[in-house]
Amino acid sequence: MALISPSRRLRRTPFSDGVERAGVKAYTVYNRMLLPTMFDSMAADCAHLKSHVQVWDVACERQISVKGPDANRLMALLTPRDLSKMADDQCYYVPMVDQYGGMLNDPVAVKHSDDHYWISIADSDLRLWVKGVVAGFGLDVDVSEPDVSPLAVQGPKADDLMARVFGEDVRSIRFFRYKRLSFQGKTLLVARSGFSKQGGFEIYVDGGEIGMSLWDALFAAGADLNVRAGGPNLIERVESGLLSYGNDMTDQNTPFDCGLGKFVSSNADYIGRSALERVAERGAEFALCPIEILGEPIGVCDRAWPIMGGSSKVGQVTSAVWSPDANCNVAIGMVRTGDAVASSNIEINTHHGPRIGQIRDAFWK
Amino acid sequence: MALISPSRRLRRTPFSDGVERAGVKAYTVYNRMLLPTMFDSMAADCAHLKSHVQVWDVACERQISVKGPDANRLMALLTPRDLSKMADDQCYYVPMVDQYGGMLNDPVAVKHSDDHYWISIADSDLRLWVKGVVAGFGLDVDVSEPDVSPLAVQGPKADDLMARVFGEDVRSIRFFRYKRLSFQGKTLLVARSGFSKQGGFEIYVDGGEIGMSLWDALFAAGADLNVRAGGPNLIERVESGLLSYGNDMTDQNTPFDCGLGKFVSSNADYIGRSALERVAERGAEFALCPIEILGEPIGVCDRAWPIMGGSSKVGQVTSAVWSPDANCNVAIGMVRTGDAVASSNIEINTHHGPRIGQIRDAFWK
Repeated sequence: MALISPSRRLRRTPFSDGVERAGVKAYTVYNRMLLPTMFDSMAADCAHLKSHVQVWDVACERQISVKGPDANRLMALLTPRDLSKMADDQCYYVPMVDQYGGMLNDPVAVKHSDDHYWISIADSDLRLWVKGVVAGFGLDVDVSEPDVSPLAVQGPKADDLMARVFGEDVRSIRFFRYKRLSFQGKTLLVARSGFSKQGGFEIYVDGGEIGMSLWDALFAAGADLNVRAGGPNLIERVESGLLSYGNDMTDQNTPFDCGLGKFVSSNADYIGRSALERVAERGAEFALCPIEILGEPIGVCDRAWPIMGGSSKVGQVTSAVWSPDANCNVAIGMVRTGDAVASSNIEINTHHGPRIGQIRDAFWK
Repeated sequence: MALISPSRRLRRTPFSDGVERAGVKAYTVYNRMLLPTMFDSMAADCAHLKSHVQVWDVACERQISVKGPDANRLMALLTPRDLSKMADDQCYYVPMVDQYGGMLNDPVAVKHSDDHYWISIADSDLRLWVKGVVAGFGLDVDVSEPDVSPLAVQGPKADDLMARVFGEDVRSIRFFRYKRLSFQGKTLLVARSGFSKQGGFEIYVDGGEIGMSLWDALFAAGADLNVRAGGPNLIERVESGLLSYGNDMTDQNTPFDCGLGKFVSSNADYIGRSALERVAERGAEFALCPIEILGEPIGVCDRAWPIMGGSSKVGQVTSAVWSPDANCNVAIGMVRTGDAVASSNIEINTHHGPRIGQIRDAFWK
């Protein structure tokens, strides 16, 4: 692994001082912002996440604020998912596609009201797309990136830690719902969500100046819960089947390729509708699936690994890592539909050499 | 400095194998792609660049291909710069702004013909903006990211090295013009351009499969020229006053703030026109300037450093580094216009402690 060159362009977050103090070892860059990836080792971080509680600097999940009389109309243009029943305290996973039906991002929309949403984004400058659509359609919506930085609290003890800092009310927040709770006199939106399947919350820290106060309060309150700094963990993510935009899907994929067809439900005239209708008619080109890669622990998957069916490529692996708990290499890949590979061994051309893999029916967790 | 976590999302390039073989020490991430930043030390890399010739993997300067009958109309919407006199073999520096007049990117447009351009981008997903504008205005233009990866050859011996690989024709390419030249039977666009002031070329490598052949050919041909792998060098960049989008300017700045007012020249009804006309009328809010920071060599500028005028902030430093040749800390910053700081010492609150700075009339080179 090489070093990462610091610059203003790779933005720090309101929690970076805490992250450094906790001894961060590695970062990735996500939405042109530093995202801590490792504090001990990937395996040790994963084991801790599954047993205790972690605080994650996920400020890189930037918010796009869309606000104005046309906000509802804009949101209906932006996603193939039906938003008509979305409540004011609700978070929706909303795949967004371009005019060709290709995935531009898979954000979470947070509804404040009919004329105000936040779009909490995965790794692409979706704000530019939204601004372009607003300019082109001449909509009356203000688009901006507010000073809002999510901080995630994840792990089986997350409810206990959060209750100590935000009060017992946090326990009754339902999955993908939020409440407005108070911290040091400031009201923050707290949702039951996060990029792990260990349970927990995301706090939308509105105003970077309170970032370190909140960070310190969580660590002070959680000492006996063995709270630690963490981040989205590759092992836990792949075991759980959580997709990563830019890794497991790009704008070359439709939602159907990604197993997200159930989110193509809107009756509105959204952008990409005719492209997606054509795909729906002829069927998806690829199927995203969990794959076990046989043999010894495998090195990092830093590029797409072709999946071969004889001499032709029938798919690719895009995330892979050794899982101590599953006692195998866990992976995510896409396989061309119609190729009869599902029940048999597949050959994967990793850049570490060829390996045999097996497509599974379900993720590990 | 921490490590960088490899993943498919941080894309490798057609030249990554060569970069690794050359012993890359550090990367930054640029357009979600790996950009090598250091091979020896920043100072040694800089000294070599000024004396010899370097090959830079700048594949991260991704191309947006815009192609179709409305390409000219689209380009006129996208930039405040007048493109009406642009020739078919010409490259134009084209700041692009949103509807608020804020800088979205400062790419180089490469004109193929009236219905086909490449936009060679700085660090933001400008493709999403372009696609959004196309969708909203209903233009007949296809927008894509082709498999084109620039490779830069920079330094005083660049002409000699390039002539050995592409023939003597390269010597007559004028600044910001290009020729189509042959390499191993393939025709590649070669422009006299690049992100240094040491002279040189950018080769638009069309088709990743020939990337390493070209890399190897350049190193084989340049052994006696002391050719080495390099990358955009922070010291040389700041000395030369080359701006970096995301560092020295963001979408919070207009072209006027950035000293790019001369590129606001279009008579077309481009996006952001009314916002920029308002700015032109009242004058720019900031002025971008070279700043010498006094005292010992200063640490990295990984966040904006406030420039203070008494107790109030009057600007910020966004790039800074020790220059062995200038024998001082060279920096780029923006200062609020109208504040009478230009002739006197200014106080800079670096995160390493306060420093005194002096605004200069010109960059160092």
